[in-house]
Amino acid sequence: MKSRAAVAFGPGKPLEIVEIDVEPPRKGEVLVRITHTGVCHTDAFTLSGDDPEGIFPAVLGHEGGGIVEAVGEGVTSVKPGDHVIPLYTAECGECKFCRSGKTNLCSAVRATQGKGLMPDGTTRFSYNGEPIYHYMGTSTFSEYTVVAEVSLAVINEDAPLEKACLLGCGVTTGIGAVHNTAKVKEGDTVAIFGLGGIGLAAIQGAVQAKASRIIAIDTNPNKFDLARSMGATDFVNPKDHDRPIQEVIVEMTDGGVEFSFECIGNVDVMRSALECCHKGWGESIIIGVAGAGQEIRTRPFQLVTGRVWKGSAFGGVKGRSQLPGMVNDYLGGRIDLDPFVTHTMPLEQINEAFELMHEGKSIRTVIHY
Amino acid sequence: MKSRAAVAFGPGKPLEIVEIDVEPPRKGEVLVRITHTGVCHTDAFTLSGDDPEGIFPAVLGHEGGGIVEAVGEGVTSVKPGDHVIPLYTAECGECKFCRSGKTNLCSAVRATQGKGLMPDGTTRFSYNGEPIYHYMGTSTFSEYTVVAEVSLAVINEDAPLEKACLLGCGVTTGIGAVHNTAKVKEGDTVAIFGLGGIGLAAIQGAVQAKASRIIAIDTNPNKFDLARSMGATDFVNPKDHDRPIQEVIVEMTDGGVEFSFECIGNVDVMRSALECCHKGWGESIIIGVAGAGQEIRTRPFQLVTGRVWKGSAFGGVKGRSQLPGMVNDYLGGRIDLDPFVTHTMPLEQINEAFELMHEGKSIRTVIHY
Repeated sequence: MKSRAAVAFGPGKPLEIVEIDVEPPRKGEVLVRITHTGVCHTDAFTLSGDDPEGIFPAVLGHEGGGIVEAVGEGVTSVKPGDHVIPLYTAECGECKFCRSGKTNLCSAVRATQGKGLMPDGTTRFSYNGEPIYHYMGTSTFSEYTVVAEVSLAVINEDAPLEKACLLGCGVTTGIGAVHNTAKVKEGDTVAIFGLGGIGLAAIQGAVQAKASRIIAIDTNPNKFDLARSMGATDFVNPKDHDRPIQEVIVEMTDGGVEFSFECIGNVDVMRSALECCHKGWGESIIIGVAGAGQEIRTRPFQLVTGRVWKGSAFGGVKGRSQLPGMVNDYLGGRIDLDPFVTHTMPLEQINEAFELMHEGKSIRTVIHY
Repeated sequence: MKSRAAVAFGPGKPLEIVEIDVEPPRKGEVLVRITHTGVCHTDAFTLSGDDPEGIFPAVLGHEGGGIVEAVGEGVTSVKPGDHVIPLYTAECGECKFCRSGKTNLCSAVRATQGKGLMPDGTTRFSYNGEPIYHYMGTSTFSEYTVVAEVSLAVINEDAPLEKACLLGCGVTTGIGAVHNTAKVKEGDTVAIFGLGGIGLAAIQGAVQAKASRIIAIDTNPNKFDLARSMGATDFVNPKDHDRPIQEVIVEMTDGGVEFSFECIGNVDVMRSALECCHKGWGESIIIGVAGAGQEIRTRPFQLVTGRVWKGSAFGGVKGRSQLPGMVNDYLGGRIDLDPFVTHTMPLEQINEAFELMHEGKSIRTVIHY
């Protein structure tokens, strides 16, 4: 079948809106009609060419929502008409990781997903007879996409997909990191570095967890109003200080925070985030994705004196098990998605969405088909 | 009063056995007659001059056992005749750290201890009228030493001090890190880097925790026999491999270990220890003390994919609360201290103990007065 798609034909080039060919879903696969998709920094990172695992040409996009159009052989957990969120972190329930009960990093489709292929090692996308690669197992920048059954969360149909799609990445990542990775408790102090979609979501998570103090840190003070409206209590612009920002935070919290979250992908900020944690028990969670080859560093003394360095992918959330509940949290008013959507536009303007993001003017642009 | 002591008069110089003057204990202080003391790498690190916080002249030593000789004003929790282990990690029970229930890093005497002074900001040691500094709040290389009341664990008098003294540092650090910091559980796989006193103690801890596999790693294969006798199940010499040792361990454990322990103080080994942990849940515990200014580093991807980087000081053990129980564990045969004591000698030969340690010929030399 034919599908409108925004294709990344090469690194550093704008996406091109073309009509691609999409093959029917094979065994264990599902054809989804994407109705909405967010545009995320990870898409931009891959598109830039800096992602060493980036493969071109590809259909990017990993923060979408849609409706099941058809299912392949053996698919039993979803059916045509189901509202779904594609998952870049699958949940098969059977691999060593899923069975461990300790992580959401399912290994079921990981190897092929990383190569831009479906689990059987082939692609369902082509253009003028040439193969187009998948991306993160989701490829939500195509109106019709094929994903593995284990990579789909079926959600409540009452949830508008133009909002629920944000739970496919950023919002879930931020909120989940607070609850699943850090396990913030009532009365804890937290510091959140970077007030993009993930950072703002982490603020929401910290509010849910009843953190006593939520320190929002960004070099762009224009973001403080939105952070305040979400529940942040303190605001720090590193540009206002001529010393390491971790010192400022340690001072304002009488020793440091219980938890910090790096929501940018900057390895120097990751160090600040660790070192602003309280001696003896503070934990820092890396959420942002750093550039290829970059390394974090600190003195081991920081850890020997009780700080803990962790990371989080997709907020530690098991997509098929937990995402439906998060969608219900949204419907019940416990998660507020509206403030994240600063712009909406049709697929044809998707390159504009990237520009808004690069300029720091958008939190999330939601693309509709 | 007069006391025989091994004094470090300057960095890089051998200790000198001299008779120093020791003032009586003041308020909140206790005079202890040290009967035995171990010699530890941390003493050697400070003596070498590489420790940026090293102060000279000083009475080093922090792994001792002794008997209370006299108490200062207001001291109520210990009395003359009590058998005690001096603690370089105090436990006051009242500071923010002690009250947190999350850490053993008591802050009660930390500031002055780091300056080689008693809590009132003065020293009790002198030689020819010139002040001699304290060290780690313990200074066990003097037959008579003065320590803060909060820095003493009262132990069972049935325990021979020539063995129990080892619980003042290395053995407690290794065993405690396994139980308190890592919380190893039955069936876990562990990797232990460095088979000195701390590493061997960590092996004992892992055996107590019923780890299924205990991988002992050292570049000196002569240490494998002792590690095996303690309960290690696998032995890896990095010199036998021409690729990063973390790759070897990941391969032999089908993905990595649940817990790793760095017991050396080498920042490159700390990286290997982290990266040999299993994706999704593996945790690495830094125990070794690195040289001044050295930094650990890794790609943040290691943490984002679920590994956790931690550290441990004195094994996370609260000395006054928990050390008496560990001494009883020794008396009950649950902790074996005998294999750690490879050499014993009188104070006069203490420089020989340092040489044996540098040459890798001793696990612990216990000095008797």
